[in-house]
Amino acid sequence: MKALRFDGNLKLVRDAPIPRRAGESLVQVICAGICNTDLEIVKGYAGFQGTPGHEFVGRVVEAPDNSLIGRRIVGEINAGCGHCERCRRDDPRHCADRTVLGIKGRDGAFAEFLSLPPRNLVELPDSINDDVAVFVEPLAAACNILEQIRITSSCHVVVVGDGKLAQLVVLVIAQVGCPVTVIGRHKEKLEIARSYGAHETLLEGESLLSESTGRFDMAIEASGSPSGLATALALVKPGGTVVLKSTHHGTTRLDTSQVVVNELSIIGSRCGRFRPALDLLIDRKLDLSALISRRLPLEEGVRAFEEAASPDSLKIILQVS
Amino acid sequence: MKALRFDGNLKLVRDAPIPRRAGESLVQVICAGICNTDLEIVKGYAGFQGTPGHEFVGRVVEAPDNSLIGRRIVGEINAGCGHCERCRRDDPRHCADRTVLGIKGRDGAFAEFLSLPPRNLVELPDSINDDVAVFVEPLAAACNILEQIRITSSCHVVVVGDGKLAQLVVLVIAQVGCPVTVIGRHKEKLEIARSYGAHETLLEGESLLSESTGRFDMAIEASGSPSGLATALALVKPGGTVVLKSTHHGTTRLDTSQVVVNELSIIGSRCGRFRPALDLLIDRKLDLSALISRRLPLEEGVRAFEEAASPDSLKIILQVS
Repeated sequence: MKALRFDGNLKLVRDAPIPRRAGESLVQVICAGICNTDLEIVKGYAGFQGTPGHEFVGRVVEAPDNSLIGRRIVGEINAGCGHCERCRRDDPRHCADRTVLGIKGRDGAFAEFLSLPPRNLVELPDSINDDVAVFVEPLAAACNILEQIRITSSCHVVVVGDGKLAQLVVLVIAQVGCPVTVIGRHKEKLEIARSYGAHETLLEGESLLSESTGRFDMAIEASGSPSGLATALALVKPGGTVVLKSTHHGTTRLDTSQVVVNELSIIGSRCGRFRPALDLLIDRKLDLSALISRRLPLEEGVRAFEEAASPDSLKIILQVS
Repeated sequence: MKALRFDGNLKLVRDAPIPRRAGESLVQVICAGICNTDLEIVKGYAGFQGTPGHEFVGRVVEAPDNSLIGRRIVGEINAGCGHCERCRRDDPRHCADRTVLGIKGRDGAFAEFLSLPPRNLVELPDSINDDVAVFVEPLAAACNILEQIRITSSCHVVVVGDGKLAQLVVLVIAQVGCPVTVIGRHKEKLEIARSYGAHETLLEGESLLSESTGRFDMAIEASGSPSGLATALALVKPGGTVVLKSTHHGTTRLDTSQVVVNELSIIGSRCGRFRPALDLLIDRKLDLSALISRRLPLEEGVRAFEEAASPDSLKIILQVS
């Protein structure tokens, strides 16, 4: 099959083996989104080699249970060992022996086929088209914030970043009914954030940062940039909370004294459960088309990665079948 | 009066003016403890210049209210503006215009006299002698952890560090009844930690760290070392919490992806209220004498700082009057 492979370099391979795993379902990929984590992977993040890609819509073509075959699905990306304490608590996201689609020990979605355990698959209703469904994974990551932290309607939240994940965070946090400010570097993207529920948008700059220092109860760092943490820490009040969503290759500098003296909390937040995200898409009939910058065939995957890395682009979709 | 002053260099001054402030109480210092923050201040931390020192026992010699005169007291170190939202909520610790004794805009306790607002003073009962009372401030900082975070008896806590603050953290956390492990670099200090309630002590080393990776629900970083954060982050399970107590001059490196992927929380924790700490000292009749390494007169303050900076020492007390 065709697959986009990374082995230190990213390239299209035309004779990759179809990834069948015992007890799992084989999924024909319909389309897949390029995420910031994918861009970090090709810089060396997580030491992953193989087929990246973890945001996808597909159709089941082989399965242990015949009734699954033919279903259009999205798939949770963490596959736990099934036996450990974490897996028994239905939390494969933190299983020490997990594989993660396109990120850790398991080939991903930038290919004609992928394999996932049947329990990872979530069937899509006809009302959710592929262009919306491909956002279930990052939307679930945004929804996860609300499962980790109580945000009330009086909480003033700032989202740091105006990229594709930041936009989904705005959509989710705006549902709470609290004031949401977005700080970003791109005027057009900030306009999208407004249409997604942001009450205020700020174009990033030094003077702005000093004016906004200590203004917010909570900052959600979804900029995808290593400097986003320092910005987020500066924006919150004493006793405030910074939610970290971005993963980077490498480390960043932290002023621990600022965290101690202002008694700040930094909360790491990763993947979320698909069901609440899918329900949000169904209930609110969210239109996510503004987030899609470009659609390219799998064969042009290398170029798609280049375009996805451009500061101006939002989601690049690889159309696979 | 005599005072230990820092202006880029630390030195004893014999003719410092007595620090009288309108509406405040003048306190004759009896004794004062050297804290890690003081050692950082003379490296440039917080940009402070003046008389350092914020852990002290004293006697009121002048006060707006005559009834205070003659009382033996300890003193909360944050003096708020009294008007802002934070001060109205009885939280001068986070008042943007606060002064902090010996740390920010206010001369401190390594002098014959200091000034504090009457509301900052807490009278000592006769049952608490000076050698115990001088620990109220850092013990309050340790108690503050329990005001910020719920720790249950089933929570496995590791304290990173075996210095003077870490020992007080052990004392406080052990009261919860949860298992407490201490990881440190000094065999004798780890023995003190055991006598203070630690169930397990570990002598720091590389192999040990890899054996203990991900073993704990919570790590409390009180090592005073910039490397303590990375150690603490490595020790906790996915979803675990790291409490940061140490302040340093400068920044440290953080692997934000580790925080995101393992969904860790980092909670900054600074000063605490004096009353719970004093009550703990009164109720439990805690013996803190093992924490005092040496007692030196104020005149030998510079030497006392040198001794306090030695890895082997615990609390160095400056005897002032």
